[in-house]
Amino acid sequence: MSEFKRSGERAADQLRPVRITRGYTIHAEGSVLIEFGATKVLCTASVEDKVPPHKRGSGEGWVTAEYGMLPRATHTRGDREAARGKQSGRTQEIQRLIGRSMRAVFDLQKLGERTIHLDCDVLQADGGTRTAAITGAFVAAQDAVNKLLAEGKLPASPILGPVAAVSVGIVDGTPLLDLEYTEDSACGTDMNVVMTGAGNFVEVQGTAEGAAFTRRELDALLALAEKGIGELVALQQKSLSNK
Amino acid sequence: MSEFKRSGERAADQLRPVRITRGYTIHAEGSVLIEFGATKVLCTASVEDKVPPHKRGSGEGWVTAEYGMLPRATHTRGDREAARGKQSGRTQEIQRLIGRSMRAVFDLQKLGERTIHLDCDVLQADGGTRTAAITGAFVAAQDAVNKLLAEGKLPASPILGPVAAVSVGIVDGTPLLDLEYTEDSACGTDMNVVMTGAGNFVEVQGTAEGAAFTRRELDALLALAEKGIGELVALQQKSLSNK
Amino acid sequence: MSEFKRSGERAADQLRPVRITRGYTIHAEGSVLIEFGATKVLCTASVEDKVPPHKRGSGEGWVTAEYGMLPRATHTRGDREAARGKQSGRTQEIQRLIGRSMRAVFDLQKLGERTIHLDCDVLQADGGTRTAAITGAFVAAQDAVNKLLAEGKLPASPILGPVAAVSVGIVDGTPLLDLEYTEDSACGTDMNVVMTGAGNFVEVQGTAEGAAFTRRELDALLALAEKGIGELVALQQKSLSNK
Amino acid sequence: MSEFKRSGERAADQLRPVRITRGYTIHAEGSVLIEFGATKVLCTASVEDKVPPHKRGSGEGWVTAEYGMLPRATHTRGDREAARGKQSGRTQEIQRLIGRSMRAVFDLQKLGERTIHLDCDVLQADGGTRTAAITGAFVAAQDAVNKLLAEGKLPASPILGPVAAVSVGIVDGTPLLDLEYTEDSACGTDMNVVMTGAGNFVEVQGTAEGAAFTRRELDALLALAEKGIGELVALQQKSLSNK
Amino acid sequence: MSEFKRSGERAADQLRPVRITRGYTIHAEGSVLIEFGATKVLCTASVEDKVPPHKRGSGEGWVTAEYGMLPRATHTRGDREAARGKQSGRTQEIQRLIGRSMRAVFDLQKLGERTIHLDCDVLQADGGTRTAAITGAFVAAQDAVNKLLAEGKLPASPILGPVAAVSVGIVDGTPLLDLEYTEDSACGTDMNVVMTGAGNFVEVQGTAEGAAFTRRELDALLALAEKGIGELVALQQKSLSNK
Amino acid sequence: MSEFKRSGERAADQLRPVRITRGYTIHAEGSVLIEFGATKVLCTASVEDKVPPHKRGSGEGWVTAEYGMLPRATHTRGDREAARGKQSGRTQEIQRLIGRSMRAVFDLQKLGERTIHLDCDVLQADGGTRTAAITGAFVAAQDAVNKLLAEGKLPASPILGPVAAVSVGIVDGTPLLDLEYTEDSACGTDMNVVMTGAGNFVEVQGTAEGAAFTRRELDALLALAEKGIGELVALQQKSLSNK
Repeated sequence: MSEFKRSGERAADQLRPVRITRGYTIHAEGSVLIEFGATKVLCTASVEDKVPPHKRGSGEGWVTAEYGMLPRATHTRGDREAARGKQSGRTQEIQRLIGRSMRAVFDLQKLGERTIHLDCDVLQADGGTRTAAITGAFVAAQDAVNKLLAEGKLPASPILGPVAAVSVGIVDGTPLLDLEYTEDSACGTDMNVVMTGAGNFVEVQGTAEGAAFTRRELDALLALAEKGIGELVALQQKSLSNK
Repeated sequence: MSEFKRSGERAADQLRPVRITRGYTIHAEGSVLIEFGATKVLCTASVEDKVPPHKRGSGEGWVTAEYGMLPRATHTRGDREAARGKQSGRTQEIQRLIGRSMRAVFDLQKLGERTIHLDCDVLQADGGTRTAAITGAFVAAQDAVNKLLAEGKLPASPILGPVAAVSVGIVDGTPLLDLEYTEDSACGTDMNVVMTGAGNFVEVQGTAEGAAFTRRELDALLALAEKGIGELVALQQKSLSNK
Repeated sequence: MSEFKRSGERAADQLRPVRITRGYTIHAEGSVLIEFGATKVLCTASVEDKVPPHKRGSGEGWVTAEYGMLPRATHTRGDREAARGKQSGRTQEIQRLIGRSMRAVFDLQKLGERTIHLDCDVLQADGGTRTAAITGAFVAAQDAVNKLLAEGKLPASPILGPVAAVSVGIVDGTPLLDLEYTEDSACGTDMNVVMTGAGNFVEVQGTAEGAAFTRRELDALLALAEKGIGELVALQQKSLSNK
Repeated sequence: MSEFKRSGERAADQLRPVRITRGYTIHAEGSVLIEFGATKVLCTASVEDKVPPHKRGSGEGWVTAEYGMLPRATHTRGDREAARGKQSGRTQEIQRLIGRSMRAVFDLQKLGERTIHLDCDVLQADGGTRTAAITGAFVAAQDAVNKLLAEGKLPASPILGPVAAVSVGIVDGTPLLDLEYTEDSACGTDMNVVMTGAGNFVEVQGTAEGAAFTRRELDALLALAEKGIGELVALQQKSLSNK
Repeated sequence: MSEFKRSGERAADQLRPVRITRGYTIHAEGSVLIEFGATKVLCTASVEDKVPPHKRGSGEGWVTAEYGMLPRATHTRGDREAARGKQSGRTQEIQRLIGRSMRAVFDLQKLGERTIHLDCDVLQADGGTRTAAITGAFVAAQDAVNKLLAEGKLPASPILGPVAAVSVGIVDGTPLLDLEYTEDSACGTDMNVVMTGAGNFVEVQGTAEGAAFTRRELDALLALAEKGIGELVALQQKSLSNK
Repeated sequence: MSEFKRSGERAADQLRPVRITRGYTIHAEGSVLIEFGATKVLCTASVEDKVPPHKRGSGEGWVTAEYGMLPRATHTRGDREAARGKQSGRTQEIQRLIGRSMRAVFDLQKLGERTIHLDCDVLQADGGTRTAAITGAFVAAQDAVNKLLAEGKLPASPILGPVAAVSVGIVDGTPLLDLEYTEDSACGTDMNVVMTGAGNFVEVQGTAEGAAFTRRELDALLALAEKGIGELVALQQKSLSNK
């Protein structure tokens, strides 16, 4: 089978250029602009000294996420969710995914009774916004935790290790890493994978948009995701090592 | 590692008793009560002779799903979503999953410009409500299609084959098939798998609730799911073969 | 005037076959499936150890009801109220009626500071859903109270006596007891009556859908309702006398 | 039993002073301020040259009502429903009642494909707001119809006859006509009755707030209502006979 | 340029007849019907012995306003905001303006921890509803404060002085005071001005509906507003001087 | 009176450094990041080939605006309006202001039956977000119009001239131009002024937060605004002259 041809000579197992800009805005405890090619997501981490009702008095903290997309982040303008008066099912699904992914690498006991809010707002979309959001949110969360440590508000880091995410999919029979918008639209099978720095799985969400996929295709996609996430974790660490 | 002990002597790779009652209510074109042990979901299929705006004039039909849970389907009473004025993120996520799973086995062109609404309402919950809903909704959809065929409204079936779903998870280190509520609560890793009758994947949604899971654990869970779904598809077919 | 001919040879003053199934679901403190012919309503009673704000600190309890209808309980599929984001005026009117009817036979002082929630969900509708709901909710409430008594949480029953309800109406000039859907649609005057076991009125709600009705017609309808409710109260007691 | 003593020497079967001011505001096709003692309701009738979806193309018109209460119409300030973002169940119940009552005296065929909106807004409340609203709305509707007749937009009146309403109740064992607020609060049984000018019933809505009521009490209340409504219809006619 | 001709021989710098009726309804601590020509607004002041969350424990009170318009206060019937389920942007803007205007003349410290709610409901609209509302709300607020003083609940008045408002605008090149509806519709520039009794500005809100306006036009409008508000303050005082 | 000391040696009549970055995102027809010091607003202009209902068939176009603020654009995290389910009164007031300001320089007839949506999203807030939004939205709108002209979709520009806005206020007795957040918070009187390139007023919105302001103070503020807007219009033109 002839391979699908990607834009910019990109290989099937190659990430788009990834840029992580820390300190993108000034007010948040952590503020990261993450770019996966033309996809740009602003991830901020805000620390609040209280927890939601289900955690009150538990001695544990909470980590939660919200996701949004500016109306003209996309090719055609979408409705503003605040104006429509409710968040779409897609938005809620994504923010639940980001929150679970972050909590997978947090020891809530060590965080103490405080909340870290991760706001992931898409400034420009070109596929993979949720995986870019998870990858960027981790860096913002780490910056916020470092600030708490530096201020002596936390004796030890509640972060167990890095977490990152990438999308993979099969387009015209070819398994591809890190889909951009045109690939995502043409895609028969689409999978979002979230993994820890140790190489274990936090979330695997695969969906057949057209024909159902075989076990062999699933294995190929998981291998691509493992490779991509390994590279993303390295980029996170490199970014965090800069002062 | 000693194995987790299941209620009722159930083996780790064993489904709960599954019962499929067709024609449970009288008005719907398809009406199925599906029971996975103590989990009971009423799945109805309603045929409407029009399509949503994004399909109008396309010559294609649409298949969509809604999911609900009666307030006291659970151990403690939950809020009624109609009274609260909105569906939770969890509800929306589930009904999107059911809809995608059904569309994976429908040729929308052959359905013509009509909509099949699948309503999955949980009368009693004991874990696995979404997978029971998918498995039951397929039977209800097949009944509705058979009615359209019998009435001469469709020349050929738009259904490509069966679809069913099951949950799998790791409890105390043991991979288990078809989790009931107490197992689900104790579960470190939880996965919902949707497959076709041909043994291909429609959805794979795995989540680490506690520690991230390894590739080996993932493989074990997928194997369990394949086994369970094979059995569920056989039960669907057996039920549909009764007049 | 020739009498209106009812389905199944039913006499004008005859109830449909009534079935009361206690313990229909397992989690609720009281759970009753009540059937008036093809109308099926699941009534659950849930006990909560707190009261709404207006009763806090009063030493009194509260009894309240919610009503819902599954989307395909009816001939044509109705919108799901949770998806629409609000309950219809009809739904609110019915659940207020059920709540008032239940409170009419409760001594809230004796109930203590706890709430009994009655959820009445229509699985299948064929007329008379609100009167079936009231009649079934009383049985569920009695079961929940019996459980509190058995557990020693209540020293004495707060229930003053039974309450039941039935619809009556005039179709083609004939006063009829317990209208089914086709009769209800054809009905000039429709009345829902709620009475205690002692034969007194809790609610009388009569509405002229077409021509206004005379005092003599009103008297005929009230007499039919008295007869029907007497029979329903006997059926409730018989059901409750089974262990 | 000693009779309940009413304010202002009012007899048990006596209405409060009723005032009907037509043309109270200038824009509406009919605009009536109706006062039952200290209860003041502004009723406007607005004619719109289209009908709601369920009547389109039917050749019939529609008559509908909305009800509201200014936040400080009552002793203590109530929430503004527009600010809270939804109408209470009570509001919806009342406006459905007003709408049905008006439609009971309208020949919708003769009205043609137009809608009459009746807005009943309580400026000051002292019991009986819904019955004052019905009684006033009829006068406003008649004025709007007279305007349509005068302008030649209607060949004949679609109004079949007058309709009016009154509340009755039992306070300390005494059946009373037209309850004011303090009576309503003390009331064991409360009934709202809507009747036509011909003396037939449109709506009978009786509720036991405390003890259930007997058939004899019901008869006494109906007799009081018949007397009161007869007087109200005469007052409506007298008001309408003024130019 | 020939001057715009106003209805009723009104001069360009002349207010419409203004009527202030105190005690218009009986329950509120202050209740004022204010009329600017055919514009009629009912302004009530309600005293509540608690404050919103942002003032709790501050020792300060709060003054806030809500604004509404009856559906048929206008030439064509508008939607009822309570039925639509939300207040329009226009409504919110106006009630924020009224609230700020009132707080400009209140010493919240002297008010103590209580809230004054000002409800401004338009019974009939003919332009200038928000300025009539501010002018009337002040009188209602003063009556409520006087009541608190008379009852000994306040040792000294928290009111610093009067506040009133008027609209001004340029129609066909002529600056006009106190626009009625037809003038407002024809208006190129529209300005609402709120001033204190001492002649200082609380709010200046000018909007070019068509062509932008010059500094000279702005000066002419401000001069008209100063004149009109001086007269309105005198009318407020005269009204308040009546027992 | 000693003058208030501004951060960074800024003079009382001096703007903060203003930066206008065109083409900030790739999908919108116009996309501008505007910075007034630390305030950063992303303004996009989206062209849609249809108009809202009130303009259909009129031959005229429409220009409208929406405004949002990312949750952590501010010092402390604000609620996400999409999650809360409604836009605040402040948000609605601002987006109405932006829309009116843009329409003041548009000939809607020349625009034809299309809509320009201006989305102004605050990425970082430090005072003056609404005035930065107006100033940036004009540049984005001009870019969108230039694109329509270049594509031959418009024969002539519907833009009548530039429009820009600035805030002014009195802090500790000193009139200041272009308030940053700490100045805005300390401010007794706050005014937002919108003017055209020709030096005429589109909007003047002045509010006394504390003491009412005098006519002399008003004049001083207007003079400052005229100066600042003149400079902003020059910056807009300079930015637009770059290819």
